[in-house]
Amino acid sequence: MTRDAYVVGSGIIEFGERYGDSFDDLLEAAYLDLLGSVDGLAPEDIDAAWYGTIDIAGEGSSGSALAHATGLFETPITRVENACATGSDAFRNASLAVQAGAADVALVIGAEKMLDDTAGLIGSAALERLWRGRGVTMPAYFGMRATRHMAEYGTTRDQIAEVSVKNHANGVKYPYAHQQFECSVEDVRNSPTVSYPLNLYDCCPVTDGACAVLLASEERAREFTDAPVRHAGWGLSADSFQRGSDLALTNFPATRQAAERAYERAGITAADVDVAEVHDCFSITELITYEDLGFCADGEGGAFVERATLDGDTPVNPSGGLLSKGHPIGATGVAQVAEIFEQLRGEAGDVQVDAPAVGLQHNIGIGRNATGAVSCVNVLERT
Amino acid sequence: MTRDAYVVGSGIIEFGERYGDSFDDLLEAAYLDLLGSVDGLAPEDIDAAWYGTIDIAGEGSSGSALAHATGLFETPITRVENACATGSDAFRNASLAVQAGAADVALVIGAEKMLDDTAGLIGSAALERLWRGRGVTMPAYFGMRATRHMAEYGTTRDQIAEVSVKNHANGVKYPYAHQQFECSVEDVRNSPTVSYPLNLYDCCPVTDGACAVLLASEERAREFTDAPVRHAGWGLSADSFQRGSDLALTNFPATRQAAERAYERAGITAADVDVAEVHDCFSITELITYEDLGFCADGEGGAFVERATLDGDTPVNPSGGLLSKGHPIGATGVAQVAEIFEQLRGEAGDVQVDAPAVGLQHNIGIGRNATGAVSCVNVLERT
Repeated sequence: MTRDAYVVGSGIIEFGERYGDSFDDLLEAAYLDLLGSVDGLAPEDIDAAWYGTIDIAGEGSSGSALAHATGLFETPITRVENACATGSDAFRNASLAVQAGAADVALVIGAEKMLDDTAGLIGSAALERLWRGRGVTMPAYFGMRATRHMAEYGTTRDQIAEVSVKNHANGVKYPYAHQQFECSVEDVRNSPTVSYPLNLYDCCPVTDGACAVLLASEERAREFTDAPVRHAGWGLSADSFQRGSDLALTNFPATRQAAERAYERAGITAADVDVAEVHDCFSITELITYEDLGFCADGEGGAFVERATLDGDTPVNPSGGLLSKGHPIGATGVAQVAEIFEQLRGEAGDVQVDAPAVGLQHNIGIGRNATGAVSCVNVLERT
Repeated sequence: MTRDAYVVGSGIIEFGERYGDSFDDLLEAAYLDLLGSVDGLAPEDIDAAWYGTIDIAGEGSSGSALAHATGLFETPITRVENACATGSDAFRNASLAVQAGAADVALVIGAEKMLDDTAGLIGSAALERLWRGRGVTMPAYFGMRATRHMAEYGTTRDQIAEVSVKNHANGVKYPYAHQQFECSVEDVRNSPTVSYPLNLYDCCPVTDGACAVLLASEERAREFTDAPVRHAGWGLSADSFQRGSDLALTNFPATRQAAERAYERAGITAADVDVAEVHDCFSITELITYEDLGFCADGEGGAFVERATLDGDTPVNPSGGLLSKGHPIGATGVAQVAEIFEQLRGEAGDVQVDAPAVGLQHNIGIGRNATGAVSCVNVLERT
């Protein structure tokens, strides 16, 4: 009854320490890169926009912030915030509007100026007061998952480190990545301890960045490209420390639910996924996510890492992932969508994998001031 | 090609100083009131939710906060923030998802705990730094509009005060209103000066509150009610101090754009609107909004007030508006939708107007840390 939405373009800027740019500058630069990348796109083509940020810099809480940065006044702009799934959920909402016929051409922009943390969100407010007061910072939250996975399944410290090794190897080939260096398992293990077993190189950096993608209806998509990418399915779900389902600590129930629904909507199974950009805020997160997404059986995430390389069965995080590229929260999911878009079109440059037809994008986030984990999964298909 | 979305239920709690309730308590109470109000509704019926808050209390930044408060884990929940249009834009996004077929039954909840302003947003961060440093607080911003309207059109101080008089007269009859007292023009003029010409009773109070509405597809709507209300049209737009279009200061271009689009989508004109809930954060805002929505010609807002009473041609703010009911930001737009829903069903009790067929809901907001004004208009129709 409804129609499909297609990704038809993307715009991105280098992720990194961008002290010289204001929040508006980041939004504007990603938008201008999109305008310059999509043949025939003019600002008047954009019917509506969805804008993702958790507003770390305290400069962009409402849709009008994007209007100011881009000149898109008179355009309906919704700001979406959903923890680390902010960008992917902004993409989902824009796609639903295209599917509903409320927009023929929709803009998605995600941005975060993490290094101007005027609100002090990263350091002090990242988890609910109940947990923060008990020492459950982000690295501790994910560190507990790692030790539990090691105890339950015999996952080794080296297998966890291999995720960082792989993603940094990819990141040096990806032009927009923040932390571009190769590292060995030894390097990861010798980097400073953050929260056992996680060392510094197991953790994503603090990074500024922005990214834009353009969605269009089937009728309009061909105006902009011969190779539109279909948004085939999505899932969005939540879970929590405070529910029995999450007490195993060896997986993220929210990801499992989101993936199941995304696969069902897309009419695929995990085996059909040819390339994935997943949420590796910490190395252990990616390892667990292999299992949650069904790429391997429970407990086999540690062994799966070697199959997730650029030339593996199921390449994961060709862009370098959050570990190398960085994690400017509102931008992260949008940049993952942009990378899958490039991969499916065969335009991913030095990190191109072998002729993928189906790509997956995934975020998991811990709600600021909540103990719930939100997860969003989007499936994209080559046309 | 797409389908319509229908409002089929609402839930609300008393607006006021709710120091005894946590933010979660507000969300839970509105949700439970909805569950209790809609025959046959069970939590399992809810396919997805949109949740509006600007998170003044710093307790609910992501969708998982709503899952925690309501138990709606595994439900896709998006948080929307869009300044004072947060609630109405959350409603719009939920409706688009129903229209897209992504949800058959969708929940919208808006909530704000204004009196626990842990982030200090109301006092210090309400306007962009550029303007705040020049004394442009919210009352100053709207006060300038008032003096300009008086100078341009001969609007009188008493006409502006009449808006407060009317809305307080309505609010004493509306069971969920915060500031329930009648006042005269003299009372308004004798209340303490805030920012000339606005006195205390020209300003909405600082209020805690929450409200929920339920949307459904046509197929599902009849399961819940014999009198669903159709979401007939919407408009969302932005404008800014920094654009020429807003320099007249006698109107809000964003409202004009949003209204024009909402009317076009609904296939109506301003003359078709039988009842409206509009954004009266200050008395002058409602007066200007009459003109922006096309209820009267430019410059005639002052004279229109007497036609906006409960028994007037076009009753405006039967619920008492923000001036009497209060303005818990995320909840405000949702509560306006809920009131229009009740009005169109003839269930508005002591504030019921005479058999309305078409209702309008309107917010305008000044983006926090932006000088842009965002406006959202939704049109609802009796079926």
